[in-house]
Amino acid sequence: MAFEKRQLPKKSENLSDWYNAVVQLAELADYGPAKGTMIFRPYGFGIWEQVQKYMDAEFKKHGVENAYFPLFIPESLFNKEKEHVKGFAPELAIVTIGGGEELKEKLAVRPTSEMIMYESYAKWIQSWRDLPMVINQWNNIVRWEKRTYLFLRTSEFLWQEGHGAHATHEESLKWVNWAMGVYQKTYREVFAMSGIVGRKSESEKFAGGDMTLTFETLMPEGKALQSCTSHDLGQNFSKVLDIKFQDKEGKSQFVWQNSWGFSTRSIGGLIMAHGLDHGLCLPPYIAPIQVVIIPATLDERVVSECQKLAASLKDVRVKVDMRDGESFGVKINRWELKGVPVRVMIGKKEIGEGIVTVSMVNQAPGTKNIFKTEGFVGGIQNLFKLIHEDMLAEQDSFLQENTFYSNSYAGFKETMKTTRGFIYAFWCEDAVCETKIKEETKSSIRCLPQGAKAENGKCIYCGKDAKYQWLFAQAY
Amino acid sequence: MAFEKRQLPKKSENLSDWYNAVVQLAELADYGPAKGTMIFRPYGFGIWEQVQKYMDAEFKKHGVENAYFPLFIPESLFNKEKEHVKGFAPELAIVTIGGGEELKEKLAVRPTSEMIMYESYAKWIQSWRDLPMVINQWNNIVRWEKRTYLFLRTSEFLWQEGHGAHATHEESLKWVNWAMGVYQKTYREVFAMSGIVGRKSESEKFAGGDMTLTFETLMPEGKALQSCTSHDLGQNFSKVLDIKFQDKEGKSQFVWQNSWGFSTRSIGGLIMAHGLDHGLCLPPYIAPIQVVIIPATLDERVVSECQKLAASLKDVRVKVDMRDGESFGVKINRWELKGVPVRVMIGKKEIGEGIVTVSMVNQAPGTKNIFKTEGFVGGIQNLFKLIHEDMLAEQDSFLQENTFYSNSYAGFKETMKTTRGFIYAFWCEDAVCETKIKEETKSSIRCLPQGAKAENGKCIYCGKDAKYQWLFAQAY
Repeated sequence: MAFEKRQLPKKSENLSDWYNAVVQLAELADYGPAKGTMIFRPYGFGIWEQVQKYMDAEFKKHGVENAYFPLFIPESLFNKEKEHVKGFAPELAIVTIGGGEELKEKLAVRPTSEMIMYESYAKWIQSWRDLPMVINQWNNIVRWEKRTYLFLRTSEFLWQEGHGAHATHEESLKWVNWAMGVYQKTYREVFAMSGIVGRKSESEKFAGGDMTLTFETLMPEGKALQSCTSHDLGQNFSKVLDIKFQDKEGKSQFVWQNSWGFSTRSIGGLIMAHGLDHGLCLPPYIAPIQVVIIPATLDERVVSECQKLAASLKDVRVKVDMRDGESFGVKINRWELKGVPVRVMIGKKEIGEGIVTVSMVNQAPGTKNIFKTEGFVGGIQNLFKLIHEDMLAEQDSFLQENTFYSNSYAGFKETMKTTRGFIYAFWCEDAVCETKIKEETKSSIRCLPQGAKAENGKCIYCGKDAKYQWLFAQAY
Repeated sequence: MAFEKRQLPKKSENLSDWYNAVVQLAELADYGPAKGTMIFRPYGFGIWEQVQKYMDAEFKKHGVENAYFPLFIPESLFNKEKEHVKGFAPELAIVTIGGGEELKEKLAVRPTSEMIMYESYAKWIQSWRDLPMVINQWNNIVRWEKRTYLFLRTSEFLWQEGHGAHATHEESLKWVNWAMGVYQKTYREVFAMSGIVGRKSESEKFAGGDMTLTFETLMPEGKALQSCTSHDLGQNFSKVLDIKFQDKEGKSQFVWQNSWGFSTRSIGGLIMAHGLDHGLCLPPYIAPIQVVIIPATLDERVVSECQKLAASLKDVRVKVDMRDGESFGVKINRWELKGVPVRVMIGKKEIGEGIVTVSMVNQAPGTKNIFKTEGFVGGIQNLFKLIHEDMLAEQDSFLQENTFYSNSYAGFKETMKTTRGFIYAFWCEDAVCETKIKEETKSSIRCLPQGAKAENGKCIYCGKDAKYQWLFAQAY
């Protein structure tokens, strides 16, 4: 499909129009025929494959095992944990017909797998020797949505969900933190994105859990995106499902549990955070194509030089654009739109002089760098590192520049109305104030950032005593 | 969970009892709470991960891209291809409620993704330059089943489904054959299994396709297992969904299509084909754990030697059994049951003499081999190769010894009643004879094997002219 650049609105002028257009024009995703569903096209799914590869290795290094549990959860099982079902029931898709017959018991399509996994944990766990049991799944999840926002809000999405069962609360908490550490590392080292780790307020925590850690990123229009979560489930599920183990002293005890998930929603954040007026901007370690080589013509000699160069780039995800019947300019536009981190242009001039002309995604559009071919090949990993660090630094600055501290509700409201961004403010931890602030400013409590120090403050809303400055923002 | 060996029936005495027991005792899989569903436990899912790794690399080498399409297919879309819907409708799970409301249009949970993928192909394909378009998915599939047979027959299973769209029938057919080639190679090189490739009869081909290639394996009780398929879809779907491209001459044409799938059913075949009276028997290239090291005691010195050995086995999936409070004998039994290809026992004697005591899955139970530690480490990949080749050779012999030729229906019936196995017999290609043979002998036409030569024969059932000897067997 020929790409017409003028179809793309400017990111700096209208973020959500730009987002919807770029996701489709760059062939990342498309709308599915059923309401709320999306199609992950190869270029978009390729991003997820990089995330999987990186994260799966981190999990395995730490002793996590992968498994696969059923998509369908009988209603009676799903309904056992009261808080859990209250949180998820409104979002369920329900199967009522199977094999041509009305089912005796309806089946929920999993919105998360706590209940179905832990029913098995109860069978499999008997002794302290069976602990810890930490199992991860890479799967698809359904939570009903009426309005689709590609990647960010869809009825079906992909994710990983890790689930640990442990002998002590202390050990379980260590895993809650470890998982969030992996997520934060993935965001920084693969997505080139920064954000804030902290714990959710009581009203925003996971349905059925005791405590939720979140990673909150800040999008260009100053809105927060909840970018992944890790939950301390206490003994809530183990008590409902009777997951017990015999400890070393022979005493029967309930296990302590945790769960943590990272979804394809993260790709929506990636697109928004780094995107440019003229297209995507993918950091090198997550890009499905890290280097694209564009021949000026499809002459045999030029093509053969391009292929030789591609072959010499070891351990690089590289593509030569061999598409026929297209001008050099059209090709350049396409790869600019697709945000490939390193774009190499090769024509007769370059071949004659033993050089490559290179554009990088972190430079101003149109910037051209000339490298000796040999130096380019030898230095490619270093180039990736520089681009990555540059993009990450920009994100760190953006976050810093858009984080505010407020001790007057008037100022707080004004900021939320104008620049938006992250605002630190004292909160008394009363849900009434939380609700009022949300009603009046559309902003919610994102988290209590890790390492926050107890102070003697006054709630920004009611003026009563408040111990901590919480992080507020409007959110997607 | 302590394993009691006497819980396992003998494979040689009752294959299906053995199968159901070993799958659960070896912790490969378990039953899900909803009818027909199963749980892939880490040890069973680990087998699938090896298959994915191998096959995904083969696909990508050949230019296949991964993507992900929605789980839910609106009924109106699913119903468009008449043969297709006729074949799959009786097996569908249907979502009728979403987000707390009765849906206006019911959603089928995908039993295969032709319709939902090709609706997008119609949008994405416009010119010959967009071809070939070959996209693969690794996903979950639902086809309603009432009785579960773990791995072999379940309402939900995992698979990959590849879908090609091409400018010519010739090119599409090449891909149909290429995919089957990858599957056959995977069976031989990863599963250490042999089988027969051929084309299905008209009544057994894919619903909506023109021709189906199948890979048929033979299980120990002489029954065939359809182990994967690759379909020539002709222009059936492209005509229904209007998938057209402009060819080089500017003429509008329908694309030619193919699809091919390989599922977790294959793991059921693997278990049955190689299994032993006392447990599983996993070939080395598919085993989630290739080498297990069992310390005679958990003394510090013994454990540290075991861990040193594990670290020295580069590029090997190795585990040291550190489970506490269990005897050496219990540990040995467990790993024998789990069919780990190479089991290494280390005690003070071995440490003192610089040796390892090794049992291999392809040797008689109880066989012990003594190797110098250094030689064992250096030769491990070679050892895997020998075990693999030995196991494959055994499968090849089994297939050969249980393949028969029959030119009398009386003899045919007798064989199907006694030894079973694969039987080659002439068939007139009339569906009436096919049905009668099935009714009278429980055997079906598995395929017309690749490379079969035209002959002047008589149909084994009706005696009329028959051109080819087709392959018959009872099947799962």
